[in-house]
Amino acid sequence: MYNFRTDLAVERREIFRKNNKLKEIDGVEVEEKKINENINVTRVKIVNEKGETAIGKPIGNYITIDIKKIKLAEEDEIQKASEIVSEELKNIINKHISYKDDILVVGLGNLYVTPDSLGPKVINDIDITRHIIKYLPQYIDENTRPVSAISPGVLGTTGIETLEILEGIVEKVKPKLLIVIDSLASRSIERISSTVQISDTGIVPGAGVGNTRKELSQRTLNIPVVSMGVPMVVESAVLVNDCLNLFIEKLQQEAKSNDYLNKLKEADNYEEIKEVLNPQDYNMIVTPKEIDELIDNMSSIVARGINMSL
Amino acid sequence: MYNFRTDLAVERREIFRKNNKLKEIDGVEVEEKKINENINVTRVKIVNEKGETAIGKPIGNYITIDIKKIKLAEEDEIQKASEIVSEELKNIINKHISYKDDILVVGLGNLYVTPDSLGPKVINDIDITRHIIKYLPQYIDENTRPVSAISPGVLGTTGIETLEILEGIVEKVKPKLLIVIDSLASRSIERISSTVQISDTGIVPGAGVGNTRKELSQRTLNIPVVSMGVPMVVESAVLVNDCLNLFIEKLQQEAKSNDYLNKLKEADNYEEIKEVLNPQDYNMIVTPKEIDELIDNMSSIVARGINMSL
Amino acid sequence: MYNFRTDLAVERREIFRKNNKLKEIDGVEVEEKKINENINVTRVKIVNEKGETAIGKPIGNYITIDIKKIKLAEEDEIQKASEIVSEELKNIINKHISYKDDILVVGLGNLYVTPDSLGPKVINDIDITRHIIKYLPQYIDENTRPVSAISPGVLGTTGIETLEILEGIVEKVKPKLLIVIDSLASRSIERISSTVQISDTGIVPGAGVGNTRKELSQRTLNIPVVSMGVPMVVESAVLVNDCLNLFIEKLQQEAKSNDYLNKLKEADNYEEIKEVLNPQDYNMIVTPKEIDELIDNMSSIVARGINMSL
Amino acid sequence: MYNFRTDLAVERREIFRKNNKLKEIDGVEVEEKKINENINVTRVKIVNEKGETAIGKPIGNYITIDIKKIKLAEEDEIQKASEIVSEELKNIINKHISYKDDILVVGLGNLYVTPDSLGPKVINDIDITRHIIKYLPQYIDENTRPVSAISPGVLGTTGIETLEILEGIVEKVKPKLLIVIDSLASRSIERISSTVQISDTGIVPGAGVGNTRKELSQRTLNIPVVSMGVPMVVESAVLVNDCLNLFIEKLQQEAKSNDYLNKLKEADNYEEIKEVLNPQDYNMIVTPKEIDELIDNMSSIVARGINMSL
Repeated sequence: MYNFRTDLAVERREIFRKNNKLKEIDGVEVEEKKINENINVTRVKIVNEKGETAIGKPIGNYITIDIKKIKLAEEDEIQKASEIVSEELKNIINKHISYKDDILVVGLGNLYVTPDSLGPKVINDIDITRHIIKYLPQYIDENTRPVSAISPGVLGTTGIETLEILEGIVEKVKPKLLIVIDSLASRSIERISSTVQISDTGIVPGAGVGNTRKELSQRTLNIPVVSMGVPMVVESAVLVNDCLNLFIEKLQQEAKSNDYLNKLKEADNYEEIKEVLNPQDYNMIVTPKEIDELIDNMSSIVARGINMSL
Repeated sequence: MYNFRTDLAVERREIFRKNNKLKEIDGVEVEEKKINENINVTRVKIVNEKGETAIGKPIGNYITIDIKKIKLAEEDEIQKASEIVSEELKNIINKHISYKDDILVVGLGNLYVTPDSLGPKVINDIDITRHIIKYLPQYIDENTRPVSAISPGVLGTTGIETLEILEGIVEKVKPKLLIVIDSLASRSIERISSTVQISDTGIVPGAGVGNTRKELSQRTLNIPVVSMGVPMVVESAVLVNDCLNLFIEKLQQEAKSNDYLNKLKEADNYEEIKEVLNPQDYNMIVTPKEIDELIDNMSSIVARGINMSL
Repeated sequence: MYNFRTDLAVERREIFRKNNKLKEIDGVEVEEKKINENINVTRVKIVNEKGETAIGKPIGNYITIDIKKIKLAEEDEIQKASEIVSEELKNIINKHISYKDDILVVGLGNLYVTPDSLGPKVINDIDITRHIIKYLPQYIDENTRPVSAISPGVLGTTGIETLEILEGIVEKVKPKLLIVIDSLASRSIERISSTVQISDTGIVPGAGVGNTRKELSQRTLNIPVVSMGVPMVVESAVLVNDCLNLFIEKLQQEAKSNDYLNKLKEADNYEEIKEVLNPQDYNMIVTPKEIDELIDNMSSIVARGINMSL
Repeated sequence: MYNFRTDLAVERREIFRKNNKLKEIDGVEVEEKKINENINVTRVKIVNEKGETAIGKPIGNYITIDIKKIKLAEEDEIQKASEIVSEELKNIINKHISYKDDILVVGLGNLYVTPDSLGPKVINDIDITRHIIKYLPQYIDENTRPVSAISPGVLGTTGIETLEILEGIVEKVKPKLLIVIDSLASRSIERISSTVQISDTGIVPGAGVGNTRKELSQRTLNIPVVSMGVPMVVESAVLVNDCLNLFIEKLQQEAKSNDYLNKLKEADNYEEIKEVLNPQDYNMIVTPKEIDELIDNMSSIVARGINMSL
């Protein structure tokens, strides 16, 4: 399988089509919808094994909601985006369970690693009802769906595979469906924290941040697993690799001489590169994923250094 | 002036030497010292206007302390690094003031933007004595130096230039020397949160994160300003630019044919690029500087989306 | 002067009236307004020196906005309360300056001490315009009022009196009015984080948390100082003292015999006391103000204890 | 059973002895040890059903480590306290399992409620080995004990009983022993965040903060459960109740007249009460447990109020 280095079905489709010069991939169906100036929905459906092999993801639905200018989003735009996410999510859930069936929401990731903290942060804002239905049913509408939620942590801080933790909880709580939230990797800087992918084929935790773990899916957990992923990072090596390929293409198109290369090298290409790399006035930086921890250590060194010298 | 896109004198010297094929720059003196396997100290001294023009920084001392493997640093290594920082800082302070003179420590940056949070975090750990000497002198050794500290915030959140804030405070508190802590930009991924630059020539706040502000220095504040800066980010455009230049060099050395380019393009160069870009097992990612804020907005959208659909 | 142990003019008036069995205090005018079921506004006006002496606060306006059930407040109730606060604040500001005059908002308190963190948290959410008007006037309506904001920290962590810091900044920034936000002490558990007192007579920082500092007011800063205070704590000794007084009153009313005292002592009065002390289903606890720091130390002890023993 | 309103066996013993005027309780054995000026260890052993009934806790060991002056603790004192905790913990663990047996550490409580955050904070600092032993055994000493850790959250935010979550995980991970960390309630202000109780009889989550949940113990989980609890709060009603009882005792001893009561009422007893209530220079305050959430709501109201009026 081609290594796409993106978790987004919509990007994998693009790469496969481009590399194989195809108009559409056999076994893949696509539908696009522009909601408004800032929001686009793309539904990628993988319908057979050919599509599965091409995209490297299981048969099923992959809905991508791209939200532009989220940085400056006002209350009403956030509300609009939430409504689109809700609508797409509802469609997928209703394909699998009925309206009062138990749902367990799972926030993957590490709260203390900023680009991996989306899952636990979302969990913190989910409206939980299961315990009220169970212990105080008189205080809640009898048609309320039981919703519970958990942030199981990551293997590196618990020592336990997320699948092991969830297997146990699923056996006890017996939800009818899992919604799993995770950080993803994409190839596009524009999509960082601006895109939601909803899919009904489960998820492999940690894929977005480089440490693949055991799959969470109907196959491993025996209930439907809806995943909601948001790209949080682009790997720097992927970025440079993409840029190099674009550059080589340009070289080949222009049949450039050594003079051309010399000029290129002497010129300061920074501004042009910057324009391509940093869309929408973001200030894109390269940083180790562990930046928060590094800052804590460094802050301690500088403070002690000052204290000892004063 | 050449745009170095790094705040580190030691990196600017390297770039200038390489670009001009010089062994050493006129007006620049350098001294290196290996403390142990993980810690190196480089003292760059700019001694005249030629050096000033070449490096693009004022005459003065620029000490770089490089600390390797800080990610996994144990208590004793952090302590060792702190001692080196303390020693170099003490040397610089003693050149300018005497042992009981008042010092004000200033932490620049925005606590809520992770890669810009070093200054405020350091301030939180500084041992403050000025108020004890002033209000409770009986509780403190009479030879204690008065130390005060402040995090003035950033223009974007206060609406006030850092220089304006500090001018006012300096007039009231009348310290004899300022120590200013800030985040810097460097060209080297290896130096992120691993290097401290100490200098006695002041600082331009925000230079490291792209928004140049009014200089804090003896010229503007009338007292010596010692700066302690730590590189926190590499701009993604700088990174790609550097990689392209390395690549062009390689192309020229190998007098490559179009076949060569084709092969390069088809090959997956990811692993090689990764090796060059991600030293020491870090997981380098490209992210907008405003990632924390973006995550908060996105977390709200996903949580609301879920809540509305359940 | 009587030691009221509350920063709220409305509570001081109550205590003074009760202790002196007065219907109203000479020199004090009061106006109450019920906005809705959950919001009450009380305007206490101290009009002469007699009122000043009785209440122990300078001549001026003290507006108290009491908001009930803030714990469970929904978006629309928060918005309604914000509107009332805004209206009262606007009235007071308009008495002193005109519509385009510069305002500096100051958030007193320590971000890292939960019950003292209100000021810095509010500052984080203020819409700042001064720098846009100054550097990018083309991007902003020309009638916008210049607003800047600062969190100067507390004496214990800066070593500098808040007044010294603000004097310097006021001289440089030259605002026409200061809005100062601080945590207050009250005598009523019901008012914790549920009441805003707005006044145009300045503020003494830290009064609410036990460390009185130099006053911030027109007298010390030469511009009007509007303060917005929120009670965050009740001192445990104040609470017990109040309870004892209530109890003694009851003893005296009931001309109790020793038998009565014996019964009281044997009985478990916990539930009755709880009912009186913990209104609105809050879970009132006694805790040291420094609880966060204590938890960090204790958390370190327990974690190390475990690590060393495993 | 008497309602002790404390989770500490050592305090329950005191109360029972005092109320029943006993020198020692039948079925309870006590051993005290002064480690140094600041650290005391008390071992309460409940040996039979009589002791069980008296204390209201199951047969087993209850070790209390009291640490004075933790507020100002320096590195070496924290280290010393950690060593005592480690020693006592090791003794208890070794009674139940052998040196290489799997241990799962569980941090109960809610990270976002300051006085309930101890458990999750401790978990963050535990050295985890289970995943290294399982996936990278070559990198670790072969005698290392497998340690894993989890913060399961609280019923109010997950909708799932802690016992349900742990039953599932214990079935999958199969540890031989659980160490459970939780916040406790005590009757003594001096013990807040200054005392660790270690016991081998399990724990009832949330007891310390007022919401009793299903017991975690050998009986419910089929493996030994060692609990480590730290008192984080004193309920304000408990505090006032205790003060009232002390006061009534004094009244009875002094056979005071109504004059005496009148004097008491007129006097300002604040300073005396303060001295009794606030040991060690702490600043004891009464606050709702939900203070952090309340501050967020209030901070939003004040900030919006200001923004709307400017």
